[in-house]
Amino acid sequence: MFSTVLIANRGEIALRVARACRELGIRTVAVYSTVDRDSAVVRFADQAVQIGPPPAKASYLSIPAIIEAALQTGAQAIHPGYGFLSEDPDFAEVCEANDIVFIGPPAHVMQQLGDKAVARALMAKAGLPVLPGSTDALTSAAEAKELAQQVGYPVILKAVAGGGGRGMAVVEDADGLRHAYRETQAHARAVFGDDRLYLERFVQDARHVEVQVLCDRHGSVIHLGERDCSVQRRHQKLIEESPAPEMPTELREAMWAAAVRGAAAVGFVGAGTFEFVLTPDHEFYLMEINCRLQVEHPVTELVTGVDIVREQITVAAGLPLSVRQDEVRTNGVALECRVNAEDPARDFAPAPGLLTEFVPPGGPFVRIDTHAYPGWRVGPDYDSLLAKAAVWAPDRAQAIARMDRVLEEFRVSGPGVRTTIGFLRSTLAHPLFQTAQHTTGLVASMSEEENGHPAQAAAVPAPVVLG
Amino acid sequence: MFSTVLIANRGEIALRVARACRELGIRTVAVYSTVDRDSAVVRFADQAVQIGPPPAKASYLSIPAIIEAALQTGAQAIHPGYGFLSEDPDFAEVCEANDIVFIGPPAHVMQQLGDKAVARALMAKAGLPVLPGSTDALTSAAEAKELAQQVGYPVILKAVAGGGGRGMAVVEDADGLRHAYRETQAHARAVFGDDRLYLERFVQDARHVEVQVLCDRHGSVIHLGERDCSVQRRHQKLIEESPAPEMPTELREAMWAAAVRGAAAVGFVGAGTFEFVLTPDHEFYLMEINCRLQVEHPVTELVTGVDIVREQITVAAGLPLSVRQDEVRTNGVALECRVNAEDPARDFAPAPGLLTEFVPPGGPFVRIDTHAYPGWRVGPDYDSLLAKAAVWAPDRAQAIARMDRVLEEFRVSGPGVRTTIGFLRSTLAHPLFQTAQHTTGLVASMSEEENGHPAQAAAVPAPVVLG
Repeated sequence: MFSTVLIANRGEIALRVARACRELGIRTVAVYSTVDRDSAVVRFADQAVQIGPPPAKASYLSIPAIIEAALQTGAQAIHPGYGFLSEDPDFAEVCEANDIVFIGPPAHVMQQLGDKAVARALMAKAGLPVLPGSTDALTSAAEAKELAQQVGYPVILKAVAGGGGRGMAVVEDADGLRHAYRETQAHARAVFGDDRLYLERFVQDARHVEVQVLCDRHGSVIHLGERDCSVQRRHQKLIEESPAPEMPTELREAMWAAAVRGAAAVGFVGAGTFEFVLTPDHEFYLMEINCRLQVEHPVTELVTGVDIVREQITVAAGLPLSVRQDEVRTNGVALECRVNAEDPARDFAPAPGLLTEFVPPGGPFVRIDTHAYPGWRVGPDYDSLLAKAAVWAPDRAQAIARMDRVLEEFRVSGPGVRTTIGFLRSTLAHPLFQTAQHTTGLVASMSEEENGHPAQAAAVPAPVVLG
Repeated sequence: MFSTVLIANRGEIALRVARACRELGIRTVAVYSTVDRDSAVVRFADQAVQIGPPPAKASYLSIPAIIEAALQTGAQAIHPGYGFLSEDPDFAEVCEANDIVFIGPPAHVMQQLGDKAVARALMAKAGLPVLPGSTDALTSAAEAKELAQQVGYPVILKAVAGGGGRGMAVVEDADGLRHAYRETQAHARAVFGDDRLYLERFVQDARHVEVQVLCDRHGSVIHLGERDCSVQRRHQKLIEESPAPEMPTELREAMWAAAVRGAAAVGFVGAGTFEFVLTPDHEFYLMEINCRLQVEHPVTELVTGVDIVREQITVAAGLPLSVRQDEVRTNGVALECRVNAEDPARDFAPAPGLLTEFVPPGGPFVRIDTHAYPGWRVGPDYDSLLAKAAVWAPDRAQAIARMDRVLEEFRVSGPGVRTTIGFLRSTLAHPLFQTAQHTTGLVASMSEEENGHPAQAAAVPAPVVLG
């Protein structure tokens, strides 16, 4: 086992990884940008190295700074968390060149799957269902238009280098295509440094269902069941659950088998996710494959009891998976809500600031993943994720009731700070969510009033003195 | 189902009950003493009623004040938590007389089992193994001496009205008996208002293992497995776990069967605990039966997935248990540590004060039950329990590693505030605990240095700026 691991990330996920390392007896090295000096992971880690100013390119995306920190501190491995360098094959290669283990899939696998057009072709070859669309990156708006005509509108344009819900646009008809092509291309160039696009048929009223896979270097490829992440706002997941509700067993099993087949086909190692779109008539198609830990991994951990980050680390160290497929049991229902420092009343604009009050919920069957604490200043430099609140219950109705209790209990305040807590509670209470009839269109369909519902602190009742 | 429940308790357990009510859609009424005005449960409950000044007799033990609060707020039921009025049959009777459901066993069952001498006789009749000792309350020190001679030293003197580790004394030989008798009698008179004592043989190098039972009004009597609570300091439990480690299956099953037989014999309803002493040669004897929720119930919840407080409430409302015995599955290992505001370096004297910093741990497979928050003042009026930290893991070694991580992560400070966190970590690290070879004598056997190990905040490493 590694004696020292460097964590190339920040926020709640850096703390998540540090916790797993500590429990494995591994020394942890945190890296941090100047504004993250007082972060929870810096307090928790055995050692912390400042790697630069807040712009990501100067710190959390700076391969030289991170490699230097690893070499200086004697780290034998680097865990990249999610986002930042987690799916960058170049980073994985530089790690390898420096005799540092990258905790993730091999660089060549990330390379293949990171190119969404190549991944589509590979997976189609492996027998996974893909939506009608590009077989290669598009070369022009005219080509896109011709292809769209063939597969039928609506279509979705996606950046080849995209992922995580960024760099995509739904196009309703031929009129909108040229503009959308230009916009998405410009966005992809700016964000990913790669303006290549591809196109697929877009499925309306669909669900987002994804399968978690785990693979070791000894030939084991297993799945940990599926997650439904259909509650999204502009392709960003807000509420996730496992298992996916209202899904027939055969359909579930077919999706698991597809993911396992896909992972095996490319020689996947570590933790990965196969994201599928599930149509109302129970067809499913591969959307993309993520070569990293997902934000929503806790719901899978809650229903399976498998510590996914621990498995990532032990697999990277060459150990076999701790469980065989036939030992994985799914029990009950888990839900996760992402609590963001955003103002639902101002179109979910970031609402950062100093947390003067931060009292996370607790009690039975509740899991809180957060890097926030009273006195922590949520800055404008990074994403607005404040905390992930997850619950477990024997069934979905109890899980929803528990999550509502948990969100009600959460006390977060500070000058200028707004949260999505009230909005999340409105969504949980929505009849379509309650009956699991919702699709990825749920949030967009919610009224202004439902969306803008302000986060309410639990009212303190006036004391009544009895004689 | 009840529409309103009053919670006749304070601290973490009042919040635990309020959470369960909220999840069931039940309106909650908190009661509080003047010093608990800003307590977590008062903030969380739908309504809160001040019932008097801090001395327990004037508030949390005041039956008239609590009944009055229930009547004024329209509460149909009262949950007593643990301690205070939770095992008082008179309180249960007054509730009944006021058409309020007492969430607990019937008054006559509490009456019988609360009298430890009667309970001993009843359980012996039901075929449960009891230690050689009194068949009735002792009438004099002379009678105690004679009986002690018969059963053999060491013996333990216990208050008939005692429980929860209070009102007991171990006597090594005849010389010590008269003094111990007088002392224990005086203590029992002062604390319980009942100076009757009984006597049993005392088993040295024993373990404390207890079985959780759940019973409804429809004839179901089930168990949720056992807990090992052998880590104690002066009969107060400090670390609890489920399942009990290093216990052969047949022994476990025999203990479960004994508890179920005992519960059925007395017509038990609700949640109860059968506490056994387990000898080194695997004999077990009944110590006492608790007619209430235990502090350590979370470890059972973590391994079974059964929400014990929810079951207490639904059973009291007349519903059947939500699970049958054959549906109860035990999975993995759960540990709980009681974090107290005490100073191990000053013989565990209470070390209350204002919590200027309070950041509970979190992340995977962690459960925190606490009423504390930053700005909460831990007062001198009540017990020193700050928080219960519980963890789940697939096996005991991982559970211990996880608990150590959790305790290390816990940040609690304030002027004058000391905690048992460091002491708990020393205990977890003790070779006897690690190998599950410990008995109830473990803590007393630990050296001064081990006991007095101060709680250490995680050191913040000095930042290293790389070029």
